[in-house]
Amino acid sequence: MGVMRIGHASIKVMDMAAAVKHYTEVLGMKVTMEDKSGNVYLKCWDEWDRYSIILTPSDQAGLNHVAYKVEKDSDLNDLKQRIEAYGVKVTELAEGALPATGRMLQFKLPSGHEMRLFAQKEFVGTEVGSTNPDPWPDNLTGAGAHWVDHVLLMCELNPETGVNTVAENTEFLCKALDFYLVEQVMVGPGGVIQAATWLARTSTPHDIAFVGAPKSGFHHVSFFLDSWHDILKAADIMAKKKVKIDVAPTRHGITRGETIYFFDPSGNRNETFAGLGYLSQPDRPVTTWTEDKLWTGIFYHTGDAVPTFTDVYT
Amino acid sequence: MGVMRIGHASIKVMDMAAAVKHYTEVLGMKVTMEDKSGNVYLKCWDEWDRYSIILTPSDQAGLNHVAYKVEKDSDLNDLKQRIEAYGVKVTELAEGALPATGRMLQFKLPSGHEMRLFAQKEFVGTEVGSTNPDPWPDNLTGAGAHWVDHVLLMCELNPETGVNTVAENTEFLCKALDFYLVEQVMVGPGGVIQAATWLARTSTPHDIAFVGAPKSGFHHVSFFLDSWHDILKAADIMAKKKVKIDVAPTRHGITRGETIYFFDPSGNRNETFAGLGYLSQPDRPVTTWTEDKLWTGIFYHTGDAVPTFTDVYT
Amino acid sequence: MGVMRIGHASIKVMDMAAAVKHYTEVLGMKVTMEDKSGNVYLKCWDEWDRYSIILTPSDQAGLNHVAYKVEKDSDLNDLKQRIEAYGVKVTELAEGALPATGRMLQFKLPSGHEMRLFAQKEFVGTEVGSTNPDPWPDNLTGAGAHWVDHVLLMCELNPETGVNTVAENTEFLCKALDFYLVEQVMVGPGGVIQAATWLARTSTPHDIAFVGAPKSGFHHVSFFLDSWHDILKAADIMAKKKVKIDVAPTRHGITRGETIYFFDPSGNRNETFAGLGYLSQPDRPVTTWTEDKLWTGIFYHTGDAVPTFTDVYT
Amino acid sequence: MGVMRIGHASIKVMDMAAAVKHYTEVLGMKVTMEDKSGNVYLKCWDEWDRYSIILTPSDQAGLNHVAYKVEKDSDLNDLKQRIEAYGVKVTELAEGALPATGRMLQFKLPSGHEMRLFAQKEFVGTEVGSTNPDPWPDNLTGAGAHWVDHVLLMCELNPETGVNTVAENTEFLCKALDFYLVEQVMVGPGGVIQAATWLARTSTPHDIAFVGAPKSGFHHVSFFLDSWHDILKAADIMAKKKVKIDVAPTRHGITRGETIYFFDPSGNRNETFAGLGYLSQPDRPVTTWTEDKLWTGIFYHTGDAVPTFTDVYT
Repeated sequence: MGVMRIGHASIKVMDMAAAVKHYTEVLGMKVTMEDKSGNVYLKCWDEWDRYSIILTPSDQAGLNHVAYKVEKDSDLNDLKQRIEAYGVKVTELAEGALPATGRMLQFKLPSGHEMRLFAQKEFVGTEVGSTNPDPWPDNLTGAGAHWVDHVLLMCELNPETGVNTVAENTEFLCKALDFYLVEQVMVGPGGVIQAATWLARTSTPHDIAFVGAPKSGFHHVSFFLDSWHDILKAADIMAKKKVKIDVAPTRHGITRGETIYFFDPSGNRNETFAGLGYLSQPDRPVTTWTEDKLWTGIFYHTGDAVPTFTDVYT
Repeated sequence: MGVMRIGHASIKVMDMAAAVKHYTEVLGMKVTMEDKSGNVYLKCWDEWDRYSIILTPSDQAGLNHVAYKVEKDSDLNDLKQRIEAYGVKVTELAEGALPATGRMLQFKLPSGHEMRLFAQKEFVGTEVGSTNPDPWPDNLTGAGAHWVDHVLLMCELNPETGVNTVAENTEFLCKALDFYLVEQVMVGPGGVIQAATWLARTSTPHDIAFVGAPKSGFHHVSFFLDSWHDILKAADIMAKKKVKIDVAPTRHGITRGETIYFFDPSGNRNETFAGLGYLSQPDRPVTTWTEDKLWTGIFYHTGDAVPTFTDVYT
Repeated sequence: MGVMRIGHASIKVMDMAAAVKHYTEVLGMKVTMEDKSGNVYLKCWDEWDRYSIILTPSDQAGLNHVAYKVEKDSDLNDLKQRIEAYGVKVTELAEGALPATGRMLQFKLPSGHEMRLFAQKEFVGTEVGSTNPDPWPDNLTGAGAHWVDHVLLMCELNPETGVNTVAENTEFLCKALDFYLVEQVMVGPGGVIQAATWLARTSTPHDIAFVGAPKSGFHHVSFFLDSWHDILKAADIMAKKKVKIDVAPTRHGITRGETIYFFDPSGNRNETFAGLGYLSQPDRPVTTWTEDKLWTGIFYHTGDAVPTFTDVYT
Repeated sequence: MGVMRIGHASIKVMDMAAAVKHYTEVLGMKVTMEDKSGNVYLKCWDEWDRYSIILTPSDQAGLNHVAYKVEKDSDLNDLKQRIEAYGVKVTELAEGALPATGRMLQFKLPSGHEMRLFAQKEFVGTEVGSTNPDPWPDNLTGAGAHWVDHVLLMCELNPETGVNTVAENTEFLCKALDFYLVEQVMVGPGGVIQAATWLARTSTPHDIAFVGAPKSGFHHVSFFLDSWHDILKAADIMAKKKVKIDVAPTRHGITRGETIYFFDPSGNRNETFAGLGYLSQPDRPVTTWTEDKLWTGIFYHTGDAVPTFTDVYT
């Protein structure tokens, strides 16, 4: 099967104590590991691998890299060949380059973002276990996020110069890594510029997304919640914890997802996302959003442009 | 990718007018086609292929066959080889054997159920379309089911004779068709008898399930709803429409799904199922239910045995 | 205004430790007081008076009395006169007869149940306070019930002898205490026997209910939850805590309420109830359920008779 | 009991056809009557009186009057005396001054808004009827609002001159009409200025609200929905119908209500409001919001000031 899903995101934070408090008390993750460099590793209760978020100390916010898990170690060999054949340079990182994690392929997306692939990470199990499990664990904290669902990356796009790393990323992931295109925004005269894309490997609406911007960067990492009701409870918790909320509960047109956007204490944008939305499938027709309906796609209810949502990122 | 998902279920009904009324007014499907033999073809609003249910006139209830869709036509060649290599005889049905449908592989599961694979079915699109779509269509009727989600088949299991077609089906689907095992019930002394299994190809909790029984048969076909709230509205609608409800809203331990069971007018059991539950993945640990917790797995809230739930099927 | 709402229910339990564990860990109440006789007093987080449940040690389950709160102390004088004028004997209990509680009127309903009225109980405040309150407190436990909502009393009814204490209770509460009738079940030839009634003083669907039975007794005390989603979470918690569930999540036709019935460890039936349902008002037309639709009224989804639901009480 | 609840709001609209379309297709009301002056009368499905909204043709938006229903005709005599004793002039309008409506008391609140009281309006019944009713009717349209819940009036408040018609209205309604104060915002040095109040007669969080402003006006009329889930569906419908949404789904700190604000085509603000929130009672402690938490009270999740929300009204 090759790439299965997002494995982890490595995120830069400026105040580690505040960050850990945020990801544990607001999102409900647990710290599962720390290393000598001061990096902190966390997982959600419904994940079975050792970690899905790495917080790294830094003097600015942003994404270090995003890693996807492949099914078998041998997939790494195949994918390395395909990526290189596509013309992208791959570095192989040995087992242990990240703790509790097997060898990794490291490469840069056309947009400049670092992506990694790995096949092995230490198995620790979900918090409900695998024998006669309850549907959710006792002692949930915060929003009780189930898992890290996807990242959205801002990708350099300049209609003047013709640079479009959204389209380049999309083609690369589809051709070299077997992602398939689920939704896209087409802009410009004739609607020929692919300005944003949502791609999947699982059958959820997306596992990664790209949005065009003047400069590449990190827009958000998203955490899965179970329902619109859990979105309300999550927003209540954010209010109690004085989290800076960017966009209060609403629905996306794109993906149909139910959402809240908010910031971690360093200014990295987070999302809590609910709703299967639809069953993503290779043969499902690609959904296209036209430029005039762009903001309906982003915030379905109001359809209003919120420039800070696309202009502010790390 | 090979098998993608369930494509359709062909179901025997004794009163076609009553059946069509049920699947349209209760489930919210639309009739998309009828043929000269009196078969009626229906689809859910969120499906893009021409049909997902075939109702066939009969003097008894039951399942004719269940069909799964594969990604590419060439997958059919590969899978035919693998199925035959596994020792299962395959008949190839020519394009048009079912209207609006390409060639099909037809074979029998070890349990005796007929399964088919196909790669092509006429594309008609979802009811919200693919350009700037609304999250749901106007004029939903009944429960507004999104799609046919899975079937559960009762499979001959006799601990005395050692016949266990649950285990045989499971091994066959995993080895020949690349399904992976998500949950299982292990019973008997030492818990060594695999008495029920849930298998997936998508990343939802299951695309097919097998439960051991004295005699093979058809337990239910399931329709996806969006949320626990939609389950309530669906149950309200069933009450209004005088549908015979088998099990009122509750949660499964197995799959974590939120559910209602009910019968179509011929006595075929239907389910409405909500909740992504969890992300099914090849590397997710298999969940095992032990015999003493079997009914907690089935009906999580009460954990009470409901013999008619497992004894009554078509 | 006279009677405002239910003030508390005094309930007999056979194992105090198990009972306290149940009402705190399953319902989410807090113990606020104990007395020298071993009685335990509890309140829900959203109540402002000192207690709403009294657990009293006993060798059997059942209801000691139910108490309603009136607005002003002077209301007690007026109501005493009206109750006595109606022909019901009233005993006045001095302040302190129950700790933290003012003087009480004590009398027997025609069905034999003890009812009390009081105007004053020690104010302790809700758990979110009254200044800039959060919508719900941190550290909720169990189902996080908001308040004790109502009781349902089984009342002797014998069509042979013409004894109908449902009708007698109803007339008494309406005439002497200004309750108004919201819903009723009419049975027997011509539908002339008032076999069950739901009465209100607040604008929620009911503050007390009476159901006819061979022998008077205590059917259940009900706790308010916020939504159908909280009903699901409550049922999940009951499953985790091995609570004996009587009726899994469903909807009532009567009151439209969303419900779970379950038992405390002594066998007293509890309900968690969600949904405003409708706005109860003195001029709202009384809803009448006919005998043939009785079970649709009770369990709207299935409409099935569940004899244990009406036959089993304490 | 005196005043029971809001009876209707009479609202000025500039384009009657567009207004009727809005109140029927978005809110789900039904037109029940029109008169020779071109006024259109509508009711919600769960209301039993002939109308709860009157749309009157005008060249500007705004509120003509809000009317509350009292329990008995004789209450009108008592209340007339009390209102006049309070120093407010009352005009009595004869039966038929409004069609299908009994005699009315007409008077001005200190803020200048016209209020009316009436005891009788033609009974037409809810859409589910009063015999074995379903919990909701077939053929709901739009958001399927249950009833008109409350109005919020902007009331002249000038700290410089000491004019505070919020406080004056509040005292008047409490003393002359037996409303009770549920929540309030206290601002200014020492928090002594009562800048906003929420008052109830039912046991829902409010039946009328007053907010201080430079000039008296009409802020919104609110419609009751059943749940946070119905709020999502309502927002989806508004998006489909291109309704101008003012505030997308969120929660109020004040009243705990779940809300959407939006505008009718004339610019009158509407709200859909869900959640019983809490049980309003005369002895429930008044909730006070301080000036620094004002916006948390208004929009609990973000706590952000949205000046247009308080500055824009009709």
